[in-house]
Amino acid sequence: MGNEPFLFVVMGATGDLMAKKLLPALYRLFSKGHGRDAVILGVATRQIGDQGFRAFAEESLKRSGLRPERDWCSQRLYYYSLKGGFEGLSKKVKEIEARHSLPGNRIFYLALPPDAFPSTIEGLGETGLNRSKGWTRLVVEKPFGRDLASAIELNNLVGRYFHENQVYRIDHYLGKETVQNLLVFRFANAIFESLWHRDRVERVEITVAEREGVEKRAGYYDRAGALRDMVQNHLTQLLTLVAMEVPVTFEPDSIRYEKVKVLKAISSPSKEDVVFGQYVEGEMDGKRVRGYREEEGVRPDSETETYVALKLEIDNWRWQGVPFYLRTGKRLPRKLTRIIIVFRRSPVCIFRPFGGCEANPNILSITIQPDEGFDLYFDVKKVGQPVILDTQRLCFRYREAFGELPEAYETLLVDILKGDQTLFVHREEVEESWRIYDPLLKETIPVHPYRAGTWGPETNPFPKGESWTGL
Amino acid sequence: MGNEPFLFVVMGATGDLMAKKLLPALYRLFSKGHGRDAVILGVATRQIGDQGFRAFAEESLKRSGLRPERDWCSQRLYYYSLKGGFEGLSKKVKEIEARHSLPGNRIFYLALPPDAFPSTIEGLGETGLNRSKGWTRLVVEKPFGRDLASAIELNNLVGRYFHENQVYRIDHYLGKETVQNLLVFRFANAIFESLWHRDRVERVEITVAEREGVEKRAGYYDRAGALRDMVQNHLTQLLTLVAMEVPVTFEPDSIRYEKVKVLKAISSPSKEDVVFGQYVEGEMDGKRVRGYREEEGVRPDSETETYVALKLEIDNWRWQGVPFYLRTGKRLPRKLTRIIIVFRRSPVCIFRPFGGCEANPNILSITIQPDEGFDLYFDVKKVGQPVILDTQRLCFRYREAFGELPEAYETLLVDILKGDQTLFVHREEVEESWRIYDPLLKETIPVHPYRAGTWGPETNPFPKGESWTGL
Repeated sequence: MGNEPFLFVVMGATGDLMAKKLLPALYRLFSKGHGRDAVILGVATRQIGDQGFRAFAEESLKRSGLRPERDWCSQRLYYYSLKGGFEGLSKKVKEIEARHSLPGNRIFYLALPPDAFPSTIEGLGETGLNRSKGWTRLVVEKPFGRDLASAIELNNLVGRYFHENQVYRIDHYLGKETVQNLLVFRFANAIFESLWHRDRVERVEITVAEREGVEKRAGYYDRAGALRDMVQNHLTQLLTLVAMEVPVTFEPDSIRYEKVKVLKAISSPSKEDVVFGQYVEGEMDGKRVRGYREEEGVRPDSETETYVALKLEIDNWRWQGVPFYLRTGKRLPRKLTRIIIVFRRSPVCIFRPFGGCEANPNILSITIQPDEGFDLYFDVKKVGQPVILDTQRLCFRYREAFGELPEAYETLLVDILKGDQTLFVHREEVEESWRIYDPLLKETIPVHPYRAGTWGPETNPFPKGESWTGL
Repeated sequence: MGNEPFLFVVMGATGDLMAKKLLPALYRLFSKGHGRDAVILGVATRQIGDQGFRAFAEESLKRSGLRPERDWCSQRLYYYSLKGGFEGLSKKVKEIEARHSLPGNRIFYLALPPDAFPSTIEGLGETGLNRSKGWTRLVVEKPFGRDLASAIELNNLVGRYFHENQVYRIDHYLGKETVQNLLVFRFANAIFESLWHRDRVERVEITVAEREGVEKRAGYYDRAGALRDMVQNHLTQLLTLVAMEVPVTFEPDSIRYEKVKVLKAISSPSKEDVVFGQYVEGEMDGKRVRGYREEEGVRPDSETETYVALKLEIDNWRWQGVPFYLRTGKRLPRKLTRIIIVFRRSPVCIFRPFGGCEANPNILSITIQPDEGFDLYFDVKKVGQPVILDTQRLCFRYREAFGELPEAYETLLVDILKGDQTLFVHREEVEESWRIYDPLLKETIPVHPYRAGTWGPETNPFPKGESWTGL
């Protein structure tokens, strides 16, 4: 964290995100020497007081395998129940800032369900908490709206009280080292960048596969679905990073500008280029798992998609004619986030008369989780005669080179404290992305069943299996 | 080996090459089921008879760790002493062919010192051994001449009795799997081929480093030197494979045609672009090793070069302006044959303002021995902030994928038996290559001393060290 003292206000401080992600990340940063003078104020509706909140925090940290210094919780953590209203919150903030001699630097982190966003933003704004002698930053978790209109409305509301350069929209995928590394990989390695266009690339495939079912999020999820929950944000963000032009500099505004340009060049996919699926009862690791409609909190006749595969085209000079396949789903066989670049084959296989051997396409596979790294598939000659081609891979694993990678939330928190918006999502990106998918939300797209533990619906015009390329 | 029975006549059958390379390779092929009906006739001056030769063969095989079937030596091996003249050899050949019902397929393998080439070729030709009812092939070991004029003379003599498609000039480097794989790598992997030109490649470096000193070859070597012994053939062959255009097919004539085109586009290097060295006393593995002039058989005032580094340019559309550095030497710190392609850097480092980080060039390193494989060096982001570039490598080792590689001589023998000339050197290649170096042979180039166990002379305008690129 930065060296300036600040107050970190978490709205929704007794929820899962706080317990599982934010508190552990904050404490880990603290113990690495960041933000030693920072103070955390938890805000929620429950009336548990400072002591109750400190106990909740200690418990949460322990569950994450951390052993907090006693002092950290008791001296750095406060709690406020929103039952007392926003004016009361404003008073509490000023009290804490006075007690700890904080210069007015404030981060408001909305770890809230989406329907609480508007009232909270309004509350912060109307009581003037968005203005202080120091800097003020607003951190918003997804979803940023549920379609184009609601996203614009939300952004307008945010914009009424906060300047865009104060707003940090979190897409936690962007906090992953490998995602950032994707930009470095592209723009520090001239050989790859010189291959990165329609003349050399045949297609791009982006997969975000989850093993989990809907878990505890059914209430939200059943009204959202995979298109809103995953495709519009995470997968589309990955797509922009793969497809963007070289930015002028590695600065947030330059990068955002290029990302928005990519989105603007994408038309809404036609219905024929989209497959929706919903998992039904199946088997995973030899155990029966129930279908989506049997999950707690899901309507028994739900038509919500838990799987989406679709094809996009980017209509610019670099990518015209290259299909980008996006795919995500719950209850797929394994957790996997992967970007695959399939390069065009050599135009002529000069070895053909000798073994009937057809050259395979070169493939670059960028794995974002769980086993972060790069694999480059290429053909070599099998030992001996005649010439037979054999696909091998050059392989790099991030973990082998650098050891354990930091949690995405740690990376993102550091950036928020430094005021670096590179890895956060700009208003324009949110809206351009909704613009792409909005027409699909208004369509009735058939939802095909797929057995839990398989790679999606059988009725699927796209290539199937763990890898679309047949790796 | 092929399935047709044949007679394999080795001229110089009691020498080192026969004992250490040819016999083991022949026996290994036999035990893999090739050439079960083949017969081997050793020819040399010593009068040891069939029995003496069979004992020599058994002894040689044992020293190579092979345990020959008793029958193989006693039933497949014959000997003829050239003291009896070529007419006698002709008689012996016909006798053996009759006894073993061979159809007249003959391979004449010249495992001889170069000054014995002319008389042997003439002897074979004048007695009509070059003509039979089957096929006849002539295998010649390097050196193919000692300058342009003598190479043309030798080729003319060969051409008087043998058609070029009967002639197999051995460059044993071409028998190595990795060298063949170089062509597959280039022409089966569209991504690399699309980077393989002056717009993307900054320079190419070819190193053939030997640990050994002159050993038992001083008599020949002191009159030859590294330029004749290594550069004109091995290094220049590697260069042509790296630089050649895509051949029409993977057939010998197509490939040779492209290799010759490369050679024709190379001018003789100017004296300033050549460094000669000669090793003096030094230390290797903690042991003192003597200097070249102290070696047995070397003239004490010898000015023969044991090290050459030089720069060539290929004046064609693909390579104009890209320097090719060739380097070879004896008594260098390690045995290493490696081709390094240094790609151009990204034109702009967009990360510069963030850590003063300069992107490193991408480098493809192709190791031919001892650890056959490919390494691709590229930059990634170090974990954490700020953005710091770190060079990592994607790594492929041939042995890990395919196990033990066959000996170069095995590969080459199989090709000779199949009549595949792809991996052999065409007359035109020999002469074009001599044409490049011939002017240097007429120059007086200063020979700089270098200590045994170091990477060559200090007075060297080229980058130094194991890797010129500083890998």
